[in-house]
Amino acid sequence: MRTALLIIDMQQGSFPPYAVRFDQQGVVGRINTLSDAVRGKGGIVIAIQHDGPAGDPHHPDAPGWPMLPEVSIAPTDLNVRKAACDAFLETELEKTLAERDVENLIVTGCASDYCVDATVKTALGKGFRVTVPSDAHTTADKAYMTAESIITHHNAVWADFIAPGGPAKVTSAAAILSDLRSG
Amino acid sequence: MRTALLIIDMQQGSFPPYAVRFDQQGVVGRINTLSDAVRGKGGIVIAIQHDGPAGDPHHPDAPGWPMLPEVSIAPTDLNVRKAACDAFLETELEKTLAERDVENLIVTGCASDYCVDATVKTALGKGFRVTVPSDAHTTADKAYMTAESIITHHNAVWADFIAPGGPAKVTSAAAILSDLRSG
Repeated sequence: MRTALLIIDMQQGSFPPYAVRFDQQGVVGRINTLSDAVRGKGGIVIAIQHDGPAGDPHHPDAPGWPMLPEVSIAPTDLNVRKAACDAFLETELEKTLAERDVENLIVTGCASDYCVDATVKTALGKGFRVTVPSDAHTTADKAYMTAESIITHHNAVWADFIAPGGPAKVTSAAAILSDLRSG
Repeated sequence: MRTALLIIDMQQGSFPPYAVRFDQQGVVGRINTLSDAVRGKGGIVIAIQHDGPAGDPHHPDAPGWPMLPEVSIAPTDLNVRKAACDAFLETELEKTLAERDVENLIVTGCASDYCVDATVKTALGKGFRVTVPSDAHTTADKAYMTAESIITHHNAVWADFIAPGGPAKVTSAAAILSDLRSG
């Protein structure tokens, strides 16, 4: 069973000066370490980029569309473009995964409560075995709640979500790395 | 364009003695008032019930499976059974809606952060026009967060969710009633 690591919306338009995200540097570092480990085990890394509408920081012609330069992308990594929160919606993602016999997904990126959440839930509904590193996705503070609390909440929901393939496995990036390296 | 009101998992097993939900009585009252108004305008009401596994309060043979008796169900209402959080997943819901030319959904019920959330997001992904009464869905306190805060968070996410048909309209049950009555 092959593993793919998804890096969702780690584009410049998701970060300062457009939005401040919790622990940006730590999250980027953990995504890079996980990506390296997945590549090293014959898995694939897929950078998912959001195509926003005209005027949006994520519009393909806008300066916010490219990935953050500090997110490591290898020449063998794949790219999927999306226009909705759910990365499976009207995209090449499902076909890309099927062609490569991927059954295990590790989902990382931004934002925990929008595109990461929607993609995790759809993946579980489609029967993928989903692992979410609890500390390798991020979001912004809201007026009513801190980013840290939002991250805690979504980690808890994914670990308890009722879907055909069971809920997601939610654990630290360090624990996932340890599993990958010993697996 | 026809409207359907979904009542998700308002089963006895979702409430005391199994779980305490925020403002149960108020939520039930608003669901009943909205259901009456939808029926009165030629819309349909669909009670969605969760079939849990053996040992679960929502197992079809368990005392928790039936609807709360105080939720008003009319003889013309429909029923859909599900086994996942997402009410569209391996159920009759989409076919039932298509057969009746439903394009507008009003989504209510329990729990805000599990089955209501998953169903709202899938409905938006499928292009339905979704309205969520901000005060006609509920959940339980978690160790890390109050039910009220969770409800506030999901209301905010649905109103800002990126999907082909746009985000959900999230407003009070009273405002939706006023629209239904004048529409």
